[in-house]
Amino acid sequence: MKLDIALLAGDGIGPEVIDQAVKVCDAIATKYKHEISWKPALTGAAAIDAVGEPYPDDTHEICASADAVLFGAIGHPRFDNDPSAKVRPEQGLLKMRQKLGLFANVRPTFTFPSLIDKSPLKRERIEGTDLIILRELTGGVYFGERGRKDNGNTAFDTMTYTRAEIQRLAVKGFEMAMTRSKRLCCVDKANVLESSRLWRETVQAMEKDYPEVEVSYEFVDAVAMRLVQWPKGYDVIITENLFGDILTDEASVISGSMGLMPSASVGEKTKLYEPIHGSYPQAAGKDIANPLATVLSAAMMFEDFGLQQEAEDIRRVVNKSLAEGIVTEDLSEDAKAYKTSEVGDWLAKNVY
Amino acid sequence: MKLDIALLAGDGIGPEVIDQAVKVCDAIATKYKHEISWKPALTGAAAIDAVGEPYPDDTHEICASADAVLFGAIGHPRFDNDPSAKVRPEQGLLKMRQKLGLFANVRPTFTFPSLIDKSPLKRERIEGTDLIILRELTGGVYFGERGRKDNGNTAFDTMTYTRAEIQRLAVKGFEMAMTRSKRLCCVDKANVLESSRLWRETVQAMEKDYPEVEVSYEFVDAVAMRLVQWPKGYDVIITENLFGDILTDEASVISGSMGLMPSASVGEKTKLYEPIHGSYPQAAGKDIANPLATVLSAAMMFEDFGLQQEAEDIRRVVNKSLAEGIVTEDLSEDAKAYKTSEVGDWLAKNVY
Ligand SMILES: CC(C)[C@H](C(=O)O)[C@@H](O)C(=O)O
Ligand SMILES: CC(C)[C@H](C(=O)O)[C@@H](O)C(=O)O
Repeated sequence: MKLDIALLAGDGIGPEVIDQAVKVCDAIATKYKHEISWKPALTGAAAIDAVGEPYPDDTHEICASADAVLFGAIGHPRFDNDPSAKVRPEQGLLKMRQKLGLFANVRPTFTFPSLIDKSPLKRERIEGTDLIILRELTGGVYFGERGRKDNGNTAFDTMTYTRAEIQRLAVKGFEMAMTRSKRLCCVDKANVLESSRLWRETVQAMEKDYPEVEVSYEFVDAVAMRLVQWPKGYDVIITENLFGDILTDEASVISGSMGLMPSASVGEKTKLYEPIHGSYPQAAGKDIANPLATVLSAAMMFEDFGLQQEAEDIRRVVNKSLAEGIVTEDLSEDAKAYKTSEVGDWLAKNVY
Repeated sequence: MKLDIALLAGDGIGPEVIDQAVKVCDAIATKYKHEISWKPALTGAAAIDAVGEPYPDDTHEICASADAVLFGAIGHPRFDNDPSAKVRPEQGLLKMRQKLGLFANVRPTFTFPSLIDKSPLKRERIEGTDLIILRELTGGVYFGERGRKDNGNTAFDTMTYTRAEIQRLAVKGFEMAMTRSKRLCCVDKANVLESSRLWRETVQAMEKDYPEVEVSYEFVDAVAMRLVQWPKGYDVIITENLFGDILTDEASVISGSMGLMPSASVGEKTKLYEPIHGSYPQAAGKDIANPLATVLSAAMMFEDFGLQQEAEDIRRVVNKSLAEGIVTEDLSEDAKAYKTSEVGDWLAKNVY
């Protein structure tokens, strides 16, 4: 297969982890005789520094015409405590999601047998957890009108959804549930929010099209609780953008190894793959960041290309690295910690 | 002391747990020669059934003129899956908060030595946790304009805050931090929301008035993660209404015993005390609900009246009931489970 992959390393540890994923993908390409052409492009603080804009048009062109996007991370602390900053790296992320139409963020949460004791949660609560959160990614309060009034003394943000936006996300949820245990949970705050009532009403109306799927409706505050109490109670969760932001991060704790959790953001056309861990600026440039989440994101990418064997090879080599302790310091306990680049080299070598 | 306490039992297990708190308070009153006059009033689904309104004017009169309000729970499943219901129990809760000006919800999270192994989190992660979340309760997306457009196909909610609303909540946060470890964490989503940027800017401007308090700013998604990873990292947290709703419920899991977590909602004048567990309809009428959270809420009430000794007596008898296994089925393991009313009787008898 010939694949054009846009490569957005971004900020912080982004470039380092992306490098390792590239090594592994290249090794897979050699093994299976694919031809990957990488198209690097600027994004985030890196792009602001270079061209004054976190998601430049050039970058968009590259992403829009690629077969997929592999993404590192965005964000720099220098912008976080300056509420008045006009240009912010995160704007690039939001613009990218919107312009590429990436309306669904797919976040699997699962445990690794060898790492289960790293979790802050007790083994019996999490062993066997296998859930997917489908977060709506281009609507809600992230994209509604916002601003100030009264000389800047009142601020507002608008959370807004259309029935069509909810439907297209929910369709993915129902379809995903059909390929799994046929349980779908719609998470909202319908006891307070009108947009949540539209969510609930829209999903309820779709139930008849998927008679085999058992649908439940839960409030976001209750789910924030149950997700840590009993994550095995969930299979496929669908939710709006802001709730999804909070719940997916919360869910990432379950496995005890945020550094291993991949994600995909999908739309009508483009698909983007990224680790969920963020730019982790404290570790940037030190060759210590865990590259496995990015490598596993690349596995999701191969799977979506229909290249199941390639995806499995990657997952297998990742599990092998965990079993043999070829891991970065976040996972190494007393044993020797490997550098980011060493882990990448080892994976690329062993994926053959 | 002469105390007029409005008594809002509400829905589900509300009436049962409230009954036990009344027994304990009456016992305390006898012991310390206080005179408590209870003023029962309708609220929630119970009030809808009786007078068509979840927070009737009569109820408001009683609450507004009382020295404090003791509240059970509100909510009934018959309204939850009917997005079109015109009158909903939760509206009563929101109206009550607004009309009584209860702008700050105070939720302590702590562990009980004897129950620590009930937590889904590992002992070493939670032992010694002692944090307080101060949730803004009368602003934000709960009270902004909301509605439908496009023939009902678009729904919107408005998240809005004024500088003054943020300040009065933050003052409480700073003051509370001063009486504790002098650490305050402001939780927002300032990388996306304008209202969060106003929060951050407002709190930043207040830092100079509390030079001893060390203030940190964290994003809500990160906190949703860290709260379960390392709850001991937090002392006083301040946050807006919706984030507070989600994070306080999440935090309630830490102790492993939601049935024990009290809360207070405070304003310029009235103060309201309630268990955080909600109406738990499945258990209603069975005399099995855990009354301890309501009893501990009453302890918070005595403390706020300056009756420290009374509060300590209540906490001591609660700990004694835990130590001696005089507990409801949620806490009883293999041992005998006591009924809600039996636990209440035991507490009232032993608080002398
Ligand atoms: C950086 C931020 C804008 C972003 C979001 O809130 O969507 C991040 O938290 C994420 O989840 O990808
Ligand atoms: C019942 C609901 C409206 C309420 C809220 O969201 O505030 C509840 O979840 C709470 O936290 O008291």
